[in-house]
Amino acid sequence: MSFDQIVVTYRIETPGSVEQLAAKIASDQSTGTFVALPGETEELKARVAARVLSVRHLPPLGTPSIPGGVGPFNRGEADIAFPLDAVGTDLSALMTIAIGGVFSISGLSGIRIVGLKLPPAYAVHPGPKYGLAGTRALTGVQGRPVIGTIVKPALGLRPHETAEMVRELIASGVDFIKDDEKLMSPAYSPLGERVKAIMPLILDHEQKTGKKVMYAWGISHADPDEMMRNHDIVAKAGGNCAVVNINSIGMGGMAFLRKRTELVLHAHRNGWDVLTRHPGLGFDFSVWQQFWRLLGVDQFQINGIGVKYWEPDDSFVASFEAVTTPLFTPSDCAMPVAGSGQWGGQAPETYRRTGRTVDLLYLCGGGIVSHPGGPAAGVVAVRQAWQAAVDGIPLDDYAKTHPELRQSIEKFGGGTNG
Amino acid sequence: MSFDQIVVTYRIETPGSVEQLAAKIASDQSTGTFVALPGETEELKARVAARVLSVRHLPPLGTPSIPGGVGPFNRGEADIAFPLDAVGTDLSALMTIAIGGVFSISGLSGIRIVGLKLPPAYAVHPGPKYGLAGTRALTGVQGRPVIGTIVKPALGLRPHETAEMVRELIASGVDFIKDDEKLMSPAYSPLGERVKAIMPLILDHEQKTGKKVMYAWGISHADPDEMMRNHDIVAKAGGNCAVVNINSIGMGGMAFLRKRTELVLHAHRNGWDVLTRHPGLGFDFSVWQQFWRLLGVDQFQINGIGVKYWEPDDSFVASFEAVTTPLFTPSDCAMPVAGSGQWGGQAPETYRRTGRTVDLLYLCGGGIVSHPGGPAAGVVAVRQAWQAAVDGIPLDDYAKTHPELRQSIEKFGGGTNG
Repeated sequence: MSFDQIVVTYRIETPGSVEQLAAKIASDQSTGTFVALPGETEELKARVAARVLSVRHLPPLGTPSIPGGVGPFNRGEADIAFPLDAVGTDLSALMTIAIGGVFSISGLSGIRIVGLKLPPAYAVHPGPKYGLAGTRALTGVQGRPVIGTIVKPALGLRPHETAEMVRELIASGVDFIKDDEKLMSPAYSPLGERVKAIMPLILDHEQKTGKKVMYAWGISHADPDEMMRNHDIVAKAGGNCAVVNINSIGMGGMAFLRKRTELVLHAHRNGWDVLTRHPGLGFDFSVWQQFWRLLGVDQFQINGIGVKYWEPDDSFVASFEAVTTPLFTPSDCAMPVAGSGQWGGQAPETYRRTGRTVDLLYLCGGGIVSHPGGPAAGVVAVRQAWQAAVDGIPLDDYAKTHPELRQSIEKFGGGTNG
Repeated sequence: MSFDQIVVTYRIETPGSVEQLAAKIASDQSTGTFVALPGETEELKARVAARVLSVRHLPPLGTPSIPGGVGPFNRGEADIAFPLDAVGTDLSALMTIAIGGVFSISGLSGIRIVGLKLPPAYAVHPGPKYGLAGTRALTGVQGRPVIGTIVKPALGLRPHETAEMVRELIASGVDFIKDDEKLMSPAYSPLGERVKAIMPLILDHEQKTGKKVMYAWGISHADPDEMMRNHDIVAKAGGNCAVVNINSIGMGGMAFLRKRTELVLHAHRNGWDVLTRHPGLGFDFSVWQQFWRLLGVDQFQINGIGVKYWEPDDSFVASFEAVTTPLFTPSDCAMPVAGSGQWGGQAPETYRRTGRTVDLLYLCGGGIVSHPGGPAAGVVAVRQAWQAAVDGIPLDDYAKTHPELRQSIEKFGGGTNG
């Protein structure tokens, strides 16, 4: 790590010269179209010019990432260093200077940002307020994954209907419940009324059992002032978590919220996939997540093993490693949230491939809600699956003496139960 | 237009059935994974479920937009209606519900949002505060394009160095000057010092000539509070415009700024290209620009004819039409900004292809700054080119009696001078 520069790695694809495009990026994204100023040129370049550090060639492609042109399409990874003085530590400046402009350069048939090394000056950003430690402290869950579920259907329940579902979910022994990310404050379920219908159930349960279920409320709004009003409704009622649609509110919304938040911020990244799904375009998650962690994400949804979406397992595993690797200090890590089609059957593979840790939020929708024995049995089954994973016992064996897990395997297991 | 629904058009590409994917989008993005509630199902669906209105088939592709799988890759455009009650008018809710989630759906080899029809309830958003009319009023320019230029080099000049350049640009008679979008408030040129060095030059010139050059200052910051501090520095010093990197600050930053702005907001869309450059993925500009206009963009950079970037002329022409077509009322249009490699030579083609209007900001960097006769001759040449375009006189003919234009053609014209 260098103290005075930012190093960005671009995977460049072009029918022309990778080196020439790397040089063009360095020029365009710093001094740009150059008008010589007598006597100033060298000093100015030293002050702010980006430099190509190295280019590593990759095998060319026969088919371009962006259609058109005649191959072969040459590829290489270029490390380019930007002087810290040219960029500063503002994350919008970093995005615009080092990344934003490169997608418009002509002569490319593909470009993907695959590396970002920030100097220690970026530790100035707040990072997560709660993260893993805060989530464990607030839920009281230690030594195993925090187990969560999601209110279904996604949209359409009125507050009293949602409350009836949540009552059953709280009674199930689950640690965490969340609004679907698509639910914020529509006319049929204004956040204030939803909070009023549900928070007493959570607080009553805490009174009776000592266990406070963490409920993540959909507070997102394009207007940061409105989002803070939503935040305050939740915080005043005793809530302690919020679902935040980070792409939709943008870096400005996230920065604004983080400075003022009393809640754990659970990031949903809907919209992200368009920035990463094509392997020749956009971003690696390892780059993009750095922005959002510095901005303050506490819990980061990153899909899981065997999800219903397009994302392959390897990508989830890489994302898990990314969010749990410190940028500057361990407290800047986000708590990974594994979700989508989870029911416990993926626990052994999740455990095996993520460094044998139980430090995650494991989010099961149907896997808990639709368990044949009801949500309580669903939660028990998920805990059993994780215990089996940690103990190294095949799920089918463990299920012989654990009927809830057996029921889950019978209902949800399509051979993915490791 | 319907009063109670939002209609989104998705161009779907899949090795499977377009109709099935359209149905999946409608389900996933509204009620989602469905748990039947006795007696409630039909009512709930009527309240919030999205519906596929129609699917128009397109010729299949042999090569998928996202690599992988076996073709043919079927394509079609699906119109899907979302009840206004399910979404509300919050733009972050709209983005998350109708768009954000669709990029993650499996079974797609491509998806692009190509249409968005919003109901009148969305007129609740502020839209541009100044737009074309405000820009004309503040610059005093009528009957021709507002002519602008850009301070070069992009990064690295200290305030006194920038001021020396700007002094010459002001004297050139240009109407508008902007900071490069990559310049905000770095250590070598803090915004406050830059304003202090430059604003007196603008105000002096106004005193002497009555003409106030509009200067667009780089105020963007990921933290909306910091961005407002930058805004206030400019406004207090008598400035009247700001460059805003809309992708980097996000919808939250933009909404926050618009509510408080005294400045004309000049949107730079760096980062946008990754969302549109692959024809099978992302967004059409006609969709995406609706969000930003409702949020308050006054002047919208949309490239131009014959640009140095990847974007073809047809795309610029479509963008021009998009930002100048009212969503609900003429005042919600943004002023189009044509830029990138412009020098006047593209004036006839720009004029011919954009409905023979002069209602635009025409931004020339090198085309003014590097004119052989200096910036003042550069500005004269650009005005001459536009006069020739409006009068229907070929530039080469017009140049016979207009030496500044002749010099521009000699220096910049590579046969693109129409």
